Order: sequence, then structure tokens, then C-alpha cells
Amino acid sequence: MRDINQFTITEAVKKTFKTEPGSRFEQLLRGFIDHLHDYTRENNVTHAEWMGILNFLYDCGQISTPERHEFILLSDVIGFSALVDMINTKGGATEGSNLGPFYLDNAPRMKLGGNLSDGREGVSVLVHGRVTDSLHNPLPGAIVDTWQADASGTYPIQEQEQGQDKYDLRGVFEADEQGRYYYTTVLPKPYTVPYDGPVGRLLRAGNRHAWRAAHLHYIVRAPGMSSITTEIFFDNTEYLDNDAVFGVRKSLIAKLGPASKVDELGYSLERKPDAVCKFDFVLAPEG
Amino acid sequence: MRDINQFTITEAVKKTFKTEPGSRFEQLLRGFIDHLHDYTRENNVTHAEWMGILNFLYDCGQISTPERHEFILLSDVIGFSALVDMINTKGGATEGSNLGPFYLDNAPRMKLGGNLSDGREGVSVLVHGRVTDSLHNPLPGAIVDTWQADASGTYPIQEQEQGQDKYDLRGVFEADEQGRYYYTTVLPKPYTVPYDGPVGRLLRAGNRHAWRAAHLHYIVRAPGMSSITTEIFFDNTEYLDNDAVFGVRKSLIAKLGPASKVDELGYSLERKPDAVCKFDFVLAPEG
Repeated sequence: MRDINQFTITEAVKKTFKTEPGSRFEQLLRGFIDHLHDYTRENNVTHAEWMGILNFLYDCGQISTPERHEFILLSDVIGFSALVDMINTKGGATEGSNLGPFYLDNAPRMKLGGNLSDGREGVSVLVHGRVTDSLHNPLPGAIVDTWQADASGTYPIQEQEQGQDKYDLRGVFEADEQGRYYYTTVLPKPYTVPYDGPVGRLLRAGNRHAWRAAHLHYIVRAPGMSSITTEIFFDNTEYLDNDAVFGVRKSLIAKLGPASKVDELGYSLERKPDAVCKFDFVLAPEG
Repeated sequence: MRDINQFTITEAVKKTFKTEPGSRFEQLLRGFIDHLHDYTRENNVTHAEWMGILNFLYDCGQISTPERHEFILLSDVIGFSALVDMINTKGGATEGSNLGPFYLDNAPRMKLGGNLSDGREGVSVLVHGRVTDSLHNPLPGAIVDTWQADASGTYPIQEQEQGQDKYDLRGVFEADEQGRYYYTTVLPKPYTVPYDGPVGRLLRAGNRHAWRAAHLHYIVRAPGMSSITTEIFFDNTEYLDNDAVFGVRKSLIAKLGPASKVDELGYSLERKPDAVCKFDFVLAPEG
């Protein structure tokens, strides 16, 4: 290896890793080394630039905590997260979108028709729809796990120090015999991703804003089906075409309309809504 | 941007960064996004793998301190550092090699013929040579800044808590009128890079060792010339062909011989050496 040069080093480095031949780990590692080295050669990366890249990662590490994963945020703003969501969306199923940093896996179980937003200000909205397979067969008992920001664009988990309950604006619903889910909540507002760290510096250096389009988060599961992680957006709202983390897809934009005909739906609702938003989730079989 | 898919997202992400057209920052950022997205598509990265990559970076951040830069170590073991050294070596000049994590920019000035290793155990070696331009013209007054491990493979800066002086085994020499530098020191031994963190996990997963071939570190400068950062290795020593950070180059391996003819060199030396190591540094003009 004393004979390596800038063209032979890549194969030499890959060979030092004695991974299981043909394994997924080997494939991912080799592909990464190939791309990193190609990038370095193509751009003639200088020592100062190399140090700049490594110090940027160092800074991302320094600001990260169990509650703030700056590397996920970085992945989000450069479209890595969205691309992984796209690649892993199954044919016929609802498109995937960002999990984001605020998911809690033990949100309270709620009854259909319940209200997520007790006492909060904002527009009261009925969110409803069906969970089906790709042939429109209902999936009774499907689990709809949702979480969201409030009408000022804040997640209660972000304001625990101000006395908020982190489980507020979260709920786990079970679809009925027709595969239906329905509940009322407050309409969320757009908000900014954290921009006080290195990722914020990157956004400013690229003259980019940090705003996300308003959205509701979902994980939807049913036995035998691949679960999906996605978001619902609202038509005619801000940032649909320049969401900071590339989460919006046309198929994930729901129509938001007045609640004038809500009685016809026949739901038993805890709170009277001002608006209605309908979205159907489609799950594909597992495997 | 609501119409993006896994093929169009890459251009969409690049366009959101409104960088100065044609700037270096734009080039580096776009190239990075291209490679990251291509990697993701080529390998169909799953959510679990995506999370694994980001958590690996998170862990690198958590173990990093001002004294330990795990991202530099990562760069070292995947040949990124070595490749940058190779790309930035100027034609005709001594090849560059790893700076490593232990450089201090204010090491003590020492007289030619001085001894770096007062009282330390090990083989006493005379290190000498000339600093010239690529036409063999001496560069009088060139600065030779060196640092190294001891005969047990440890840098004194790593053992400050055990009472060691971090400036030990470091020295800054000024070449004489003939461009000559010469001093005695103790022969360093191989050592391992830190492997108690995520980079160590990566090495173990790839069945790799963490050993570096024994070496002396140098930064050499002279007015009007490009300074070089490099390492000298010793022939017939361990790990020359599997140095953990890919630092060894054939041209950087110095012959190590007995000191039987040391008097003929005419140096005034503080300590009598057992062995002699000769290495000439060649600097290229700036720019």
C-alpha cells in the first residue's frame, strides 16, 4: 500500500474492509467510499475545504442532543430524507413523507370522533377518511397515529418548560368496520425548522428560508400491510412549493373546505368543526 | 415543488440553494448533493439504513471534544484525508501526508543539533537532511516543525494527566545556509488510532486493525514556497503496507542505518545517536 496514488487509493481503501462478500454492509460501505473519493477528485477538494466539511459535521455533533438530531435536520434540508421516503414508497400505497423529530411512540389512544385540541385556539377542523388497501378494501382496525403543531406552529413537546404536556396534539385512533377514521383538531400553522445551528448557517449561506408548509403527521399500520409514515398538507396554504425539507407531494395535499355538510357524514363528534379535511390512506401488503 | 419525484428531487434541491453562480461554494454543494442522491438511488437506501447512517454521525459528534475530532479520524480511516493530501501535493514537491490530531502550532524553537528526547528511553536517532526547491537549490532559513510519539507509541500531549509536558517531543528548527536541518530524537513506535468510539466500531465491523506505522510528523515552510504537511516513515518497520490511515507513500519511507559514520557529517550534536535517518524535503513555489 506504499504505492497508492490518488487514483488507486479508492480500491485500496475498499479492500482493507474485510466485510462479508456480497453483504449489504459491504455494498453500502463500498458505494459510500466510491462516491466520497469521486467527489474529492472531481472537485479537487483543498485542505481548507476538507477541514471546513469536517468542522461542519463536528458542529452538528456539538449542538445535537437526544432531543435535537442536527444530522436528521441536515438530511432533511438537502433532500436526503425525502429521497429515502420516495424510494421506499410502495406501488399503489400512499406516498411517504418526513417522520420529523417530534414523534413519540406512546401517544394516548383516543376514540373516533374525539378532539385532539382541547381548549386550544385556532380553526377547528374535522380530519377524516378511510384506510384501505390498494383495491379500496377497507382495513378495519387499522391504526392511525397522528401528531401535529398547534395554531401558532409549535409542538407542545417544544414547550414543556412552559408547562405544556408533550402528549398534547397527539392521538392514536383505530379505524372502524368501514376502515374509517375521524377526529377533530386545531388547524396547524407553518413553522420553521431550527436554524440556530450549523444547518441554519447552511440555509443562510444558500439564501434559503427555514419554513415548513403546515401539515399533520401520520404513521398508519394494519396487520399484514406495510406501515406508512407520511404527512398531510392543505391546499392553498403557504410553502407548498418551497417546503424547507421537501416533504410536500401533490398526492399528499388535502382539500380544506367548510363544515356546512358535516352532519351528513353521520359521525359522533366531541367538538363542532369549522372546516373539513378528507384524506384516504392506502396501504400495500407487507414484503 | 409538489411534483418532485425520486428522479427530479436532486435538481429541485440544488435550485433551492441560491448561491453565487459559478462560486466554489455552489460547486462543492451541488457536487455533494449529486453524489449523496446518486448513492441513495443506486443502493435503494432503506429507512433503517438511513437512520443508521445519521446515528453513526450523531455518535461521532457525541464522542468529539476539542481534543478529539472523531470526524477527522473517520476521514482518516476511509482514505478521505490521504486523498486530499495526494490531490494537493504539488508537482516536484515532497508528497503530503496526514496532519493528524496532535499538532500544536507553538512548539519550542530549537537549535540545530539539539535533542528532542531528553531522558526518554529508546533508540537515539539522528534525523537530518536538506530543504531545497525542486532544482536542488537549498532554502536557508526554511522552518522544519516536527512532532512525534515516543518509544512506546504515545504522544506526551496524550499523557498530560500523568504529568507529561505537551510540548515534549516537539521542536521547530531553522535550516542553515546550506538548507540543512539536523537533530536527535528517540525512534517512535507504531501506535493505534483511538478505537473506543464509533470509528472503532466501523473498523471492527470491517475486520480492520487500528495500527499506524511509526512516523515523524512535519510541517516545512519557506518564504515564497508552498508549505508541506507530511510524515516520514522508516524502512523495514511494521504496518508500512497496512497503515490504518493510509499515510504511507514509498517516497516518504526513509532508510534507517547505524550511526557508525556520523562524525563525518560534521554536525555538532547534543546527544550521540545510535542510528541515522536521512530525509530531504523539497518545496514547490507558492501559487
